[in-house]
Amino acid sequence: MAYQRIFNFSAGPSMLPLPVLETARDEMLNYRGSGMSVMEMSHRSKVYDAIIVETEALLREVMGIPANYKVLFLQGGASLQFAMVPMNLMKTGKADYIVTGQFSGKAYDEAKKYGEINLAATTKSENFVRIPLQNELKLNPEADYVHICYNNTIFGTKWHYLPDTAAVPLVADMSSSILSEPVDVEKFALIYAGAQKNIAPAGLTLVIVRDDLLTKELPAYVPTMCNYFVMAENGSMYNTPPCYPIYICKLVLEWIKGMGGLSAMKVHNEKKAALLYDYLETSKLFKSPVELKSRSMMNVTFRAEDDDVNAKFVKEATAEGFVNLKGHRSVGGMRASIYNAMPIEGVEKLVAFMKAFEG
Amino acid sequence: MAYQRIFNFSAGPSMLPLPVLETARDEMLNYRGSGMSVMEMSHRSKVYDAIIVETEALLREVMGIPANYKVLFLQGGASLQFAMVPMNLMKTGKADYIVTGQFSGKAYDEAKKYGEINLAATTKSENFVRIPLQNELKLNPEADYVHICYNNTIFGTKWHYLPDTAAVPLVADMSSSILSEPVDVEKFALIYAGAQKNIAPAGLTLVIVRDDLLTKELPAYVPTMCNYFVMAENGSMYNTPPCYPIYICKLVLEWIKGMGGLSAMKVHNEKKAALLYDYLETSKLFKSPVELKSRSMMNVTFRAEDDDVNAKFVKEATAEGFVNLKGHRSVGGMRASIYNAMPIEGVEKLVAFMKAFEG
Repeated sequence: MAYQRIFNFSAGPSMLPLPVLETARDEMLNYRGSGMSVMEMSHRSKVYDAIIVETEALLREVMGIPANYKVLFLQGGASLQFAMVPMNLMKTGKADYIVTGQFSGKAYDEAKKYGEINLAATTKSENFVRIPLQNELKLNPEADYVHICYNNTIFGTKWHYLPDTAAVPLVADMSSSILSEPVDVEKFALIYAGAQKNIAPAGLTLVIVRDDLLTKELPAYVPTMCNYFVMAENGSMYNTPPCYPIYICKLVLEWIKGMGGLSAMKVHNEKKAALLYDYLETSKLFKSPVELKSRSMMNVTFRAEDDDVNAKFVKEATAEGFVNLKGHRSVGGMRASIYNAMPIEGVEKLVAFMKAFEG
Repeated sequence: MAYQRIFNFSAGPSMLPLPVLETARDEMLNYRGSGMSVMEMSHRSKVYDAIIVETEALLREVMGIPANYKVLFLQGGASLQFAMVPMNLMKTGKADYIVTGQFSGKAYDEAKKYGEINLAATTKSENFVRIPLQNELKLNPEADYVHICYNNTIFGTKWHYLPDTAAVPLVADMSSSILSEPVDVEKFALIYAGAQKNIAPAGLTLVIVRDDLLTKELPAYVPTMCNYFVMAENGSMYNTPPCYPIYICKLVLEWIKGMGGLSAMKVHNEKKAALLYDYLETSKLFKSPVELKSRSMMNVTFRAEDDDVNAKFVKEATAEGFVNLKGHRSVGGMRASIYNAMPIEGVEKLVAFMKAFEG
C-alpha cells in the first residue's frame, strides 16, 4: 500500500496510527449509523456528547488523572497557553520559568506580559543540550507556579527528573511527550499539550488542571475564552469545541488502550529511541548533540560534522521515503521525531539506511 | 446509501457537501501520493503549504477579497473574536455595538472589558424578531468601529441593508451567512466567521481584515496569539494552524466554485428559503416569528402556537430523518438551518412533511 511506504519523522503535526486513520476514513460519511459525519454533528447533540464524554473518560483512564483535576479541550495550541497560564494562575504576580529550549523561551517571554517572571534556570549558553540539575534551579518559594517544558521538541531533550518545587505548583508543557509514557499527574498542578504530536490533528489543546487552582474572577482584560474556570464550568462547551480533533483523540486513546496503555507505549518508545541512540553511540559519522542524561525519547537529534553531509543525508533519506528529517534551523543537522504512531519498523529501516549511508 | 437518508438541519456544526466528505474519505490515508494524511503533515512542509496557499487564493477569488485585505486562519471561534476585535481595533477606547441576538449580545458584553461601548441599537424588547432600521441607530461618529452580527443564527434574522456608518469601520460577525451569497467585502473593515456552518468543521475561524487597521503595538495584556498583526505577519503560522479544517475549507471552496460561485449559491439558497417561507405564509399551523424584511436565508425559525404541537413535530420529524430541528431554548419552536450544503431535496421533503403533519 502506498501509505506504508512513507515514514514521516515530522516534529508535528506528525504520524497518526494507521488504524485511527482507517476508522476515520470508514466513518467519514456515516458515523455509526447516525447518517452524518462527525464533522457535521451539533456539539450539543446526544451523538456528539457521547464522543466527548468517552474521550475524557478514556484520557482519565489512560493517564490516571485524579478526580480533582479538570480536563479541558481547548483551541489555540500551546502558544495560547503561554498567555493563559499566567493570566489564570498569577495571584501574587510572580512566577518561575525554567528555559530549556525555544518553546519554554516563548512561554517565558509571553508570561512577562502578566507579571514579574524569574528565570529560575536556563541552559541557553550551552545551546540547550541538557536539562539543568536541581541544584542549578534558583526557585522563588513565593512564586505562584514554576513552569517547565517537559520535552523539548527542537533540541531533543527531556526532563528525566521532576524539579522539587516544594509547595509551589508545577506547570508543564507536555506537547511533545504526552501519552508517550506514564506520568504521575498529581506531581503537576497543570499540564498542557498541543494535540498535533501524540494526541490528534492540530487544532486541539489539552489542559489538565487541579481544580483548586481555578478562579472565576480574573483581571478584566482576560478574554472569556481564555478563562479556565469558564471553560471547566461549561465542560469545554462555552462555545463550539474542536469537535473533529476530539473525535480523533478518542480513536488515538482507544488505540493506546488496545496497545496496552502508557506502560506499553513506554516500552514501545524506549525500544525505538534505543535503536537510534545505540547506533549513534557507535557511529563514526553521526553524533547526538544531547547530553546522555537529558535525551528525549520522542525527538532524536543527530548530525554529521560536515553540513554538506547533513544536507546530502536529508536529501537521500527523503528519496528513500524517510521524510521530514531535517533538523530545526536553530540546531541544524537532523531530527527524527518518533512519536507513538511511528512503528518500530520505521526506526529500524531508518537506522539501516543511516548505516548504509555511513558505509 | 445510509448517509443520504438523514437531513441534518443543525445550526452548526452542520452539513458539509457530500462530495467534500467523499474526497476527505478518499484522501484520508494518502493525500495525492504524499504517502500521508493531511492530518499528519508538517504545517511547514511544501505539500501542506500548497494547501493553505490554495485555500486562501480560492477564498479571495470566490469572495472577491481585495488585495489590501488580509485573510487569517485562526482558532477559538467567533467567541474569541468577541475579545480580539476590541483588543485589536480599539484606539480611542470607544465602539458602537448593535445587538440583534444572543451572539451580538455576547460580543457586546465581551467588548465592555476593553472600552466604553455604546449600545447603538437593539431589538431585544421585541425578542429580536427584526433588524433595526438605519434611523434607529444611535451611532457615535467618534467610535473606533461599529459591530454587527450579519445573520442571527438563533433568531433567524439577517441584515438586508448595510448600516451607513460614515467613516467609522464596520465589523461583521458572518459566522452563519459567510459564503452563502456575494458580499461586497470593501464595505467592511473586518469580517469574521466561525467555520462550522458554511466553511469547514469546527476549530477554524476566518478573519478578513483591511490591512491599514492592523497595528503591532497593542496593550501589553493582549496575548501574542490574539494579535492580528502578528498572525498576518506570519501568514497564520505563528504557531501550528488548524491544518485539517483549512484543508476541508479548501474542498468546500472548490465545491462552491464548481457550483458556480457565490451568485449561484445565492440562487440555490434563496430557492430553499423560499420553499419554507412561502409555505409558512400559507400554513394555518406554523408561523415565522420574524418580520418579513429581516428574515434569514440560512436559519428559518417557525412554530405552532401550542408547545406540545412543537414537541410532537420535532419528535416525528426526527423519526422521519429530519434531525436537529428543535429551536434554541430562547426562541422555542423549530429552526431549520439550511446552509449551503443542505440540498434542495432536503427542504422539499421537509416542507412536504410539514404539510402532511398539518394535515
